[in-house]
Amino acid sequence: TLAAPAIAQSAPELKWRLTSSFPKSLDTIFGAAEVFAKNVAEASDGKFQIQVFPAGEIVPGLQAADKVTDGTLEMAHTASYYYWGKDPTFAFATAVPFGLNSRQQNAWMYEGGGIDLMNEFYAAYNIHALPGGNTGAQMGGWFRKEIKTAADLKGVKMRIGGFGGKVIAKLGVVPQQIAGGDIYPALEKGTIDAAEWVGPYDDQKLGFNKVAPYYYYPGWWEGGPMLHFFINKAKWEGLPKNYQAIITGAAALANTDMQARYDHLNPGALKKLVADGAKLRPFSAEILEACFNAAKETYAEMNATNAAFKKVHDAVMAYRADAYLWQQVSEATFDNFMMAQQRKKAL
Amino acid sequence: TLAAPAIAQSAPELKWRLTSSFPKSLDTIFGAAEVFAKNVAEASDGKFQIQVFPAGEIVPGLQAADKVTDGTLEMAHTASYYYWGKDPTFAFATAVPFGLNSRQQNAWMYEGGGIDLMNEFYAAYNIHALPGGNTGAQMGGWFRKEIKTAADLKGVKMRIGGFGGKVIAKLGVVPQQIAGGDIYPALEKGTIDAAEWVGPYDDQKLGFNKVAPYYYYPGWWEGGPMLHFFINKAKWEGLPKNYQAIITGAAALANTDMQARYDHLNPGALKKLVADGAKLRPFSAEILEACFNAAKETYAEMNATNAAFKKVHDAVMAYRADAYLWQQVSEATFDNFMMAQQRKKAL
Repeated sequence: TLAAPAIAQSAPELKWRLTSSFPKSLDTIFGAAEVFAKNVAEASDGKFQIQVFPAGEIVPGLQAADKVTDGTLEMAHTASYYYWGKDPTFAFATAVPFGLNSRQQNAWMYEGGGIDLMNEFYAAYNIHALPGGNTGAQMGGWFRKEIKTAADLKGVKMRIGGFGGKVIAKLGVVPQQIAGGDIYPALEKGTIDAAEWVGPYDDQKLGFNKVAPYYYYPGWWEGGPMLHFFINKAKWEGLPKNYQAIITGAAALANTDMQARYDHLNPGALKKLVADGAKLRPFSAEILEACFNAAKETYAEMNATNAAFKKVHDAVMAYRADAYLWQQVSEATFDNFMMAQQRKKAL
Repeated sequence: TLAAPAIAQSAPELKWRLTSSFPKSLDTIFGAAEVFAKNVAEASDGKFQIQVFPAGEIVPGLQAADKVTDGTLEMAHTASYYYWGKDPTFAFATAVPFGLNSRQQNAWMYEGGGIDLMNEFYAAYNIHALPGGNTGAQMGGWFRKEIKTAADLKGVKMRIGGFGGKVIAKLGVVPQQIAGGDIYPALEKGTIDAAEWVGPYDDQKLGFNKVAPYYYYPGWWEGGPMLHFFINKAKWEGLPKNYQAIITGAAALANTDMQARYDHLNPGALKKLVADGAKLRPFSAEILEACFNAAKETYAEMNATNAAFKKVHDAVMAYRADAYLWQQVSEATFDNFMMAQQRKKAL
C-alpha cells in the first residue's frame, strides 16, 4: 500500500535512556522526568520508550551533560548550572544570582528567544535543550546562628554550590561543596555553619531544622531555577518530526507540572517545619543589597573575559528590567494585597 | 501483518473543528489555540487535524461551550467564566474575584485536584476540559476620572462582565455589557465612565488611553485567569489513548506559552501606553478592602444556594490561604527586592 512506508518512517520503535541528575528521593524533580517519559510513551502509542534512571544508577548525576554530549545517553534531565565550571554561560538556562523568577524564565525561554539563544550556545556540546521544570524561588538555607548584617556572614562556612557560592564568597562566606546526604551531620557537628538545599518540601526530609533552626529567605541565587531536558543534538535532529513534536509537548507538560507540584507541596511542608521549630528569617535589606552588588561585580568580571557569557547576560538582564517594571504594576499589587489578607487571617 | 490493525486503531485520520471564543485580533489568546492545534497535527504526523476558527466565523464566541456540549463542534478554546450565567461554578476554572494567581491556578489545576474537580462538574455539560493558557493578573481598567475612595465608585457606569461586575455592583458601580469594538466610542461619548479589558498589550490596540486616561490596577476580579480547551466528552472518551496523550501535551504547551507571550509583550506595551499619556493608578487599600468584603458577601450568598459552587469554592479558598502563606516567604521577598531595584534603576 501507499500508507505503509510513511507509517514506518514516522513511528519507528525507539528505546532511549535518560539519566536524571537527581535521586528518586527528590520526587518532585525526579518525577518531572517520569511525567515526561510517560507522556512520550503514551503519545507514541508505546513506540518511543524513554527509560528514566536516577542519578548514579548508570552515570553520576553531575556527568549527565557529558554523557549526552558524547552520545552515551540520548537524554538527561538536569540543571544546566551544574556545568557552569565548564563555562558560566550554562547557568543562565537555570538561574543566576538575582536573575529571573519562574514565570519570567518561562517568558524569556518560550517567547523571548531564550530557548534558541541557549541552544546556539549548547551546540558546541552537541546538546539540544528544552525547559523541563522549575522549583520556584528557593529558600536561602539553614543557619545555626542568626545573621543580622552582612558583617555576620564573614567566615561563615556554608554549603552552597556554583555561582551563588562565588558571589557570596565576596562577602566573606566560605562556600563548601557537600553532597545532600552529608549535609545534616556536617551541620550537627558544626563542621559547617549553614547550608542551602531547595525549599520546604525537600528540606523537610533532611531534618535541618533540628540542627540549624534559622531558616533564611529568599535564595537570591536562584529566584526561579529551571530544569532542562538535554538531548544529544544528532539524536534530536535524527528524530522524525512527529517525535520532535511529541517531545516538545511532553517537555512543556513536565515543565508546568513540576512547578505546580512544588507550589502544591511547599505550603504544608512550611507549616510543618515551623511547627517543628524552624525559625523563619528574611535576609535583611542590607544583606540583600550587599549580595546584589557582589553579583553585579561578578557579572562584570565574567563579561570582561567571556563573550558567550556576555551575550546571554545582556539579553537576560535587559529582559529582567522590563519584566520587573511590568510585574510591580498589576501582578505584585494583587499578590501583596492578598498576602496582607493572609496575614490578617482574612483568607 | 500483525502490526497493521494496531496502527490503524491508534492513528486514525481525524478532522476536528475548534472554535475560539476570541477574535484573531487578540493574537495572544487566539494564538494559544493555534499553538495547540499545530502541535497536535505535528505530533500525529498530520493525521489528527484540528481546524481553529475565530469567534463568530462558525459560531458566536459566547456559544462555544453550548456547541461543544451538543456535539456540533468537537472543541472550543474559551474562558469558562463566560458561562457563569448557567452556573457560577464555571467561573472557578478561569478566575473568581480575589482568587488564585496564575501560578497558583496551575498548582491547583495540575496537582491540587482542580482538573478532576472541574471535570466532575463539566460532565453534566458533556465537556472534558484542560488548562489552555493564562493572561496573568489583568489590569483594573480605564477610568475617565480619578477614583480615590470606594465612595467615588458610586454610580460609575463601567464596562465589566460577569462575576466581577456582580461584586463591584455592591459598591454602587453600574456594570455594563459592551462588546470589545464598542467600548472606545462609549468611553469617548461618556455613555460609560470606565471599562476593563485585559492588560497593556491588548488594551493598547483599542486606544483607551486617549479617552479615559486613568489606568487602574490590579484587576482583582481576575488575578490569574486561565483559558481552557473544552472537548466534547464523548469525543474525548472515544479518542485512542495516544491521541489523548498528544492533546494533554499540546494543551500544556499552549498553557505555558500563552502566559509567556503575555509576560513577553506586556512590558513594552505598558511603556508605550505611559508614553502616550496613560496615568497609572493603584486602587487604594480602602477600595480593595471594600471590594474584598463585597466578594466575600457574594460568595456567602452563592454558597447558601448552590452546592456545586460551594464544593469548588471551599477547595479553591483553602488552596488560596495556603498558597499565599507560602508565597510571601521566598517568592514575594525575592520579587519585592527586585522591584525595589527596578524602581531605583539598578536593574
